[in-house]
Amino acid sequence: MAPPTPRLVVPVALKKKPWEQKLPFHNRWHPDIPPVAAVKVGEMFRVEMVDATGGVIKDYDSAIDVKTIDASTVHYLSGPIKVVDEDGIPAKAGDLLAVEICNLGPLPGDEWGYTATFDRENGGGFLTDHFPSATKAIWYFEGIYAYSPHIPGVRFPGLTHPGIIGTAPSMDLLKIWNERERELEENGLQSLKLCEVLHSRPLANLPSTKGCLLGKIEEGTPEWEKIAREAARTIPGRENGGNCDIKNLSRGSKIYLPVFVDGANLSTGDMHFSQGDGEVSFCGAIEMSGFLELKCEIIRGGMKEYLTPMGPTPLHVNPIFEIGPVEPRFSEWLVFEGISVDESGRQHYLDASVAYKRAVLNAIDYLSKFGYSKEQMYLLLSCCPCEGRISGIVDAPNAVATLAIPTAIFDQDIRPKSSKVPVGPRLVRKPDVLKCSYDGNLPVTKNSGSGA
Amino acid sequence: MAPPTPRLVVPVALKKKPWEQKLPFHNRWHPDIPPVAAVKVGEMFRVEMVDATGGVIKDYDSAIDVKTIDASTVHYLSGPIKVVDEDGIPAKAGDLLAVEICNLGPLPGDEWGYTATFDRENGGGFLTDHFPSATKAIWYFEGIYAYSPHIPGVRFPGLTHPGIIGTAPSMDLLKIWNERERELEENGLQSLKLCEVLHSRPLANLPSTKGCLLGKIEEGTPEWEKIAREAARTIPGRENGGNCDIKNLSRGSKIYLPVFVDGANLSTGDMHFSQGDGEVSFCGAIEMSGFLELKCEIIRGGMKEYLTPMGPTPLHVNPIFEIGPVEPRFSEWLVFEGISVDESGRQHYLDASVAYKRAVLNAIDYLSKFGYSKEQMYLLLSCCPCEGRISGIVDAPNAVATLAIPTAIFDQDIRPKSSKVPVGPRLVRKPDVLKCSYDGNLPVTKNSGSGA
Amino acid sequence: MAPPTPRLVVPVALKKKPWEQKLPFHNRWHPDIPPVAAVKVGEMFRVEMVDATGGVIKDYDSAIDVKTIDASTVHYLSGPIKVVDEDGIPAKAGDLLAVEICNLGPLPGDEWGYTATFDRENGGGFLTDHFPSATKAIWYFEGIYAYSPHIPGVRFPGLTHPGIIGTAPSMDLLKIWNERERELEENGLQSLKLCEVLHSRPLANLPSTKGCLLGKIEEGTPEWEKIAREAARTIPGRENGGNCDIKNLSRGSKIYLPVFVDGANLSTGDMHFSQGDGEVSFCGAIEMSGFLELKCEIIRGGMKEYLTPMGPTPLHVNPIFEIGPVEPRFSEWLVFEGISVDESGRQHYLDASVAYKRAVLNAIDYLSKFGYSKEQMYLLLSCCPCEGRISGIVDAPNAVATLAIPTAIFDQDIRPKSSKVPVGPRLVRKPDVLKCSYDGNLPVTKNSGSGA
Amino acid sequence: MAPPTPRLVVPVALKKKPWEQKLPFHNRWHPDIPPVAAVKVGEMFRVEMVDATGGVIKDYDSAIDVKTIDASTVHYLSGPIKVVDEDGIPAKAGDLLAVEICNLGPLPGDEWGYTATFDRENGGGFLTDHFPSATKAIWYFEGIYAYSPHIPGVRFPGLTHPGIIGTAPSMDLLKIWNERERELEENGLQSLKLCEVLHSRPLANLPSTKGCLLGKIEEGTPEWEKIAREAARTIPGRENGGNCDIKNLSRGSKIYLPVFVDGANLSTGDMHFSQGDGEVSFCGAIEMSGFLELKCEIIRGGMKEYLTPMGPTPLHVNPIFEIGPVEPRFSEWLVFEGISVDESGRQHYLDASVAYKRAVLNAIDYLSKFGYSKEQMYLLLSCCPCEGRISGIVDAPNAVATLAIPTAIFDQDIRPKSSKVPVGPRLVRKPDVLKCSYDGNLPVTKNSGSGA
Repeated sequence: MAPPTPRLVVPVALKKKPWEQKLPFHNRWHPDIPPVAAVKVGEMFRVEMVDATGGVIKDYDSAIDVKTIDASTVHYLSGPIKVVDEDGIPAKAGDLLAVEICNLGPLPGDEWGYTATFDRENGGGFLTDHFPSATKAIWYFEGIYAYSPHIPGVRFPGLTHPGIIGTAPSMDLLKIWNERERELEENGLQSLKLCEVLHSRPLANLPSTKGCLLGKIEEGTPEWEKIAREAARTIPGRENGGNCDIKNLSRGSKIYLPVFVDGANLSTGDMHFSQGDGEVSFCGAIEMSGFLELKCEIIRGGMKEYLTPMGPTPLHVNPIFEIGPVEPRFSEWLVFEGISVDESGRQHYLDASVAYKRAVLNAIDYLSKFGYSKEQMYLLLSCCPCEGRISGIVDAPNAVATLAIPTAIFDQDIRPKSSKVPVGPRLVRKPDVLKCSYDGNLPVTKNSGSGA
Repeated sequence: MAPPTPRLVVPVALKKKPWEQKLPFHNRWHPDIPPVAAVKVGEMFRVEMVDATGGVIKDYDSAIDVKTIDASTVHYLSGPIKVVDEDGIPAKAGDLLAVEICNLGPLPGDEWGYTATFDRENGGGFLTDHFPSATKAIWYFEGIYAYSPHIPGVRFPGLTHPGIIGTAPSMDLLKIWNERERELEENGLQSLKLCEVLHSRPLANLPSTKGCLLGKIEEGTPEWEKIAREAARTIPGRENGGNCDIKNLSRGSKIYLPVFVDGANLSTGDMHFSQGDGEVSFCGAIEMSGFLELKCEIIRGGMKEYLTPMGPTPLHVNPIFEIGPVEPRFSEWLVFEGISVDESGRQHYLDASVAYKRAVLNAIDYLSKFGYSKEQMYLLLSCCPCEGRISGIVDAPNAVATLAIPTAIFDQDIRPKSSKVPVGPRLVRKPDVLKCSYDGNLPVTKNSGSGA
Repeated sequence: MAPPTPRLVVPVALKKKPWEQKLPFHNRWHPDIPPVAAVKVGEMFRVEMVDATGGVIKDYDSAIDVKTIDASTVHYLSGPIKVVDEDGIPAKAGDLLAVEICNLGPLPGDEWGYTATFDRENGGGFLTDHFPSATKAIWYFEGIYAYSPHIPGVRFPGLTHPGIIGTAPSMDLLKIWNERERELEENGLQSLKLCEVLHSRPLANLPSTKGCLLGKIEEGTPEWEKIAREAARTIPGRENGGNCDIKNLSRGSKIYLPVFVDGANLSTGDMHFSQGDGEVSFCGAIEMSGFLELKCEIIRGGMKEYLTPMGPTPLHVNPIFEIGPVEPRFSEWLVFEGISVDESGRQHYLDASVAYKRAVLNAIDYLSKFGYSKEQMYLLLSCCPCEGRISGIVDAPNAVATLAIPTAIFDQDIRPKSSKVPVGPRLVRKPDVLKCSYDGNLPVTKNSGSGA
Repeated sequence: MAPPTPRLVVPVALKKKPWEQKLPFHNRWHPDIPPVAAVKVGEMFRVEMVDATGGVIKDYDSAIDVKTIDASTVHYLSGPIKVVDEDGIPAKAGDLLAVEICNLGPLPGDEWGYTATFDRENGGGFLTDHFPSATKAIWYFEGIYAYSPHIPGVRFPGLTHPGIIGTAPSMDLLKIWNERERELEENGLQSLKLCEVLHSRPLANLPSTKGCLLGKIEEGTPEWEKIAREAARTIPGRENGGNCDIKNLSRGSKIYLPVFVDGANLSTGDMHFSQGDGEVSFCGAIEMSGFLELKCEIIRGGMKEYLTPMGPTPLHVNPIFEIGPVEPRFSEWLVFEGISVDESGRQHYLDASVAYKRAVLNAIDYLSKFGYSKEQMYLLLSCCPCEGRISGIVDAPNAVATLAIPTAIFDQDIRPKSSKVPVGPRLVRKPDVLKCSYDGNLPVTKNSGSGA
């Protein structure tokens, strides 16, 4: 019987910068990024990772790092990892790769994270038209709990998960991605009349050599140039999984990923100590470095057996998930509703995005009545274990979306009170989140964390 | 101490048709529809209701009723109910009305319901481009459980709730509704290039005198004519609550509704034995007659205290909810994901509606591999206690939506199996849902239910 | 397709006394009590019942009814009900009878209950040495919730269940019961030196003709005399199920009962709106009249297939249960511990009863610091949804038992506070429970309920 | 802001034996065992520990280690730890020490554990009269999950917790313990006529110098001799907490311990990856080495404020607990019942220990019908997350206890099946648990773990 301690296949040294680590990272999807490790089905293995920004965002009293970040470098992914069966035969295109997350958590010695929203000129967030400036909150972990000096009076258990987990795309799939996203970037704005509330952010992020990291492919070589021009950014979730930001993919969950290339080439990164559904502030989970303990299984021919293409090619599929059994348990929820009428009063047709935006805005405004700034609540709703639901999607013209917040995360009773209960003066919760005020001097770092 | 048996303020007699009931129904929102009853705060009262269609859809082996229904008559609402405080002073505009749902259920003797999708020419549903025909499944209740002869092998506990609960709008609010929905109906199509997958359904349903029921206002009178021309349809959820279709508003939940007119004028209807998030097939919950036992509280000045307008006027608000403590408990969920790329392969920009559509289509296709027709699964996902989430709404250009299905509702294991487990021939689940095949003869009714 | 409305097989008329009802009750277990109804497997049927005392305990401001009750008449059981298969063949000895509780609740018009503890001279309770007097609290129901004017500041959802559900014993089994209980009554006291804290209550309740009700067997006949002398009291749970007082046997649960006589002869009664594990005050649940909607299945030969005798005969078996999916959901619990050292400081050997007693006493004392009398808390812990656990049963000499209380049932925060938080004066919760003060005049009844 | 990485105050080196570790262990309770470390309130600190046996029980294919273990040496406790407030003032007798378990788990590199039952001559277990021999099962951990090669077909998430956590007793409290346990050992047997089913195990374990470990007190010195003669064994839970074996004291829970000596002198040990209520096989949890991350708070004067003595002195108190929010979530439970009639058919009076014994025996026999040996199920029910309840403790003469087992831990459906479903031949689950067969050669160790 093999000893069950997971084999460390991707190590991270906390004191080192990303480019000094033993194995290189990558921040693009491409079939030709070579594996950095290989694992067998049934084997428990451990993957460590730096945070999404490779240590650029730090634990100090300023949001200047958030304001000035070069977004072209995210996300630093660990992998690719080649998966083979008991006989050493790699996973093949058409198989399903079942990945069980046996355990995960922060890296010991690096028990902190951050939640931020970018400046509207540098990526913005879901509510960038309301919150155009860069802001940041630092979170400290006490075992399963997180608290922030910038959002006092709140503490909650994390539902920790990798923001990104995915397989490498084939060239065919990569072409599909690049074409449809280019079409959007070129022609999308015109179509978005109806949605102008959202359109100040970039529509898509097309391949670019700027900031590109391709693992073992040496930068500047012709091979690197070719791949960098083709490789997809890691921002959106796509057919291969990727940045799906599904907050429930925590301990004990299982992910069935389609395999597009030999060996599957599994990559993962962007660990979140906790995230709310939607991750609304964009850099909105509690971002951190961390580790995963994984176990893989290959379901031969599983794509055909279990997935149905939902588009013009057999590649238009999506992963399937099973949720694990140890999620934090809350019994009381306060729920905010939004309908697809925007802040200008304009009616949108069954638009769940607009409805969810209004639900989030309603929640932020409500909670700010309890002593908080709106920026604090925007960041909180991005990262606390709140649930965002599509409640109604058929009752034309209004989609109804809801945002449910577990009341136990607050140290005060946030429910509406009867008119008979006098409401005392509410405590103002200080200090506030960090907002950017760049004065030319970089602040002193507290926790340098991984890659800082 | 008053005996706690709830006072019956809106009775329904099962054998009678809607227009023969003791108190008249209404199917429009308007401030001038007069209350049919009054209740005091703190008092438990009981409201009975017919199903959304007033008994048109019946328990027989045909979907002809679904195909031919006159959609202008839904929903049959019970109320309005005037709410006064302990001193008899009515709720006032600007107050919040807190409504606790102490209990609810089917009407004794009428323990059945239906799930349907309309013909694309008569309202359609979320997936009307895939499922253009009228279909129907009948459900029978065994206490907390429902099962359908048309979707064998499935049984689940209901999370029963009223699809519609709301207060009367003021004339000002009504004007806002009519204007913004008219604007959409007139100009929306042009803006919807991006969303053509959805646009075959009516964009909005403007006021119309056809099928209009206004409670105690006698049809045909000048007053009726005036109100009928102004009164809003009950299809969408809006600022007053209304058809919000939030599946968690079950036993023990509490709803904080804004008050726009003197007395609040609370109405409710459209009972659902169970519904999935989104209610995707449109007539998609398990629709039934039923009763509510309610208790109200008035929070004086609560709109200003707790709600923040999210639009150009102080009326642009939404209700708040607390979820009750007795929801069915599931521990294992299979989760399907969708991204905002449509079936033609086109990329949409952070469109949660498109993403959810793809998640639902993925789930239907997956489940149909277990012996079901796609129509069976479309209706099932409309009405079973599945959760629809907005998982990611910021990772441009893809919104990520997920649909989580509790595996325990099936009598077989629906999880993907390892390639080592041989999959036997799967049982074909018969009979199928009812599809429309009108031959000129109406079928024999089994359960006539309310208003039949 | 048969209409699913459950067939009413045992009706109760609220205005009538127990002996005026259409079908007679019984309060003893005996194979010769004839069935009052028959049901088929698969059929949904409804059984109504009066409360455990047949209406003796009433809704008025006195505990005189509790003090003076004739305990020989409890419990009023509905049934026996004969169960046959699809072909009309009855369940046989050796089968298992699977009974699904599809639904249950109070009888409409009788939405109240009571919790009481008897005088130590008339049955007492688990803590009768601490609480020797009769006390009573009335509970009113608001749908799923109960509250008591006698225990202010508390409200909770019920986990409603029948205290008693069981099959008729065979003569052989009945003899086993009578012999072992007689042996205890005759010789037990001497063995109980170690447990004198408990021994002031009767050790067993042997058959007696006093108060005996045998359903259709006419009182005073020779047959009645014979059966009354043999028939077992309904106080304890035994091999046939019976008064097992398992609080989780609520909606959706399934009970596998051994069958000892032809037809199974299922009886049920003693409805509880809610009960804590242990039902410590004896008359300790929220006792009420009510209804059950049931569905039976026969597992032929199931006793041999699934049960193993745990004693000298094949009859020494116990039922098996499955818990339903709609229990109230609590997330925060305060837990009290007890060890098997009694109040005199004496050490008992791995005695879980003594340990649980100490846990309950600890909880009562703790909670009484929050403005309550100890009597209020004794009754509350008998009936609220608290969990009593055997945490450790092997670490000699101490058994460890725990009592977990959901904190959400109180309107104040009952957790211990840091020494930095000043504790203000605590509200005294008035009025108190009713204690007996008999002055010769019976009080005015509020709710007469069933059989009053 | 202090960095949140917990300070390691009690380290354990995996490769070293217990007596080679940096800080010494202790296995007795006594006020004069000196602290090995000190912590401040609010500070996060980490305590590592060896398993209960200090590495005697090993990962090899034999139960000889279980059979021959010297029970006088358990448990190896880490500590005592002195707790001081912000100003450095120690906790005082009369305070409450609130200990939050922020995190816990196995030691990296030692991810395995064992469940065992001792020979009846060497400690036995709850069912030692049925299972007199030493048996053992090894468990391997895959992140949150455990599986055993000796109990195939079972896998479950752990609810990990320290079996022992407690404060040092004062001399007065120690005297109370020694006197009452001596009284039991000397006179108990005679009183136990009624309970002879249990009495083959030692009644109590009085102080003895054999195997005694007293931390920094050097063995053999007069001081050591004196303390060793007085110090209490760590087997039972008592007023100071200690071996309470409450399986829910996992991540996020909070324990309020009475303080009896200056500094509180907190000790902890006996980590369990998982345990069932009751820990029935005695060495019955999944025993392992591990770590705790803790945070303390002092509630000055809290014993008087919150605890009420339940005995002749102010020291007769018990700790209070709050349960954490991340327990594994199960929705389906199969429940076995026991009543207080023993296997000989003898009736006991409201004896919850006898009732629980019968419930456990019923469960073992039932589950063994699904291909398992009874020994496998005895060990499984000791360590899987099953719930043991005192359901009824008042219905003389029968206590009713229940044992609820989450069905999801099995890879087969263990519910009773309708007689219509033919039951195929059941898979025999091999290999079986290890039973002792000592042949004079010690087996080869696989995982040496801590202290081996």
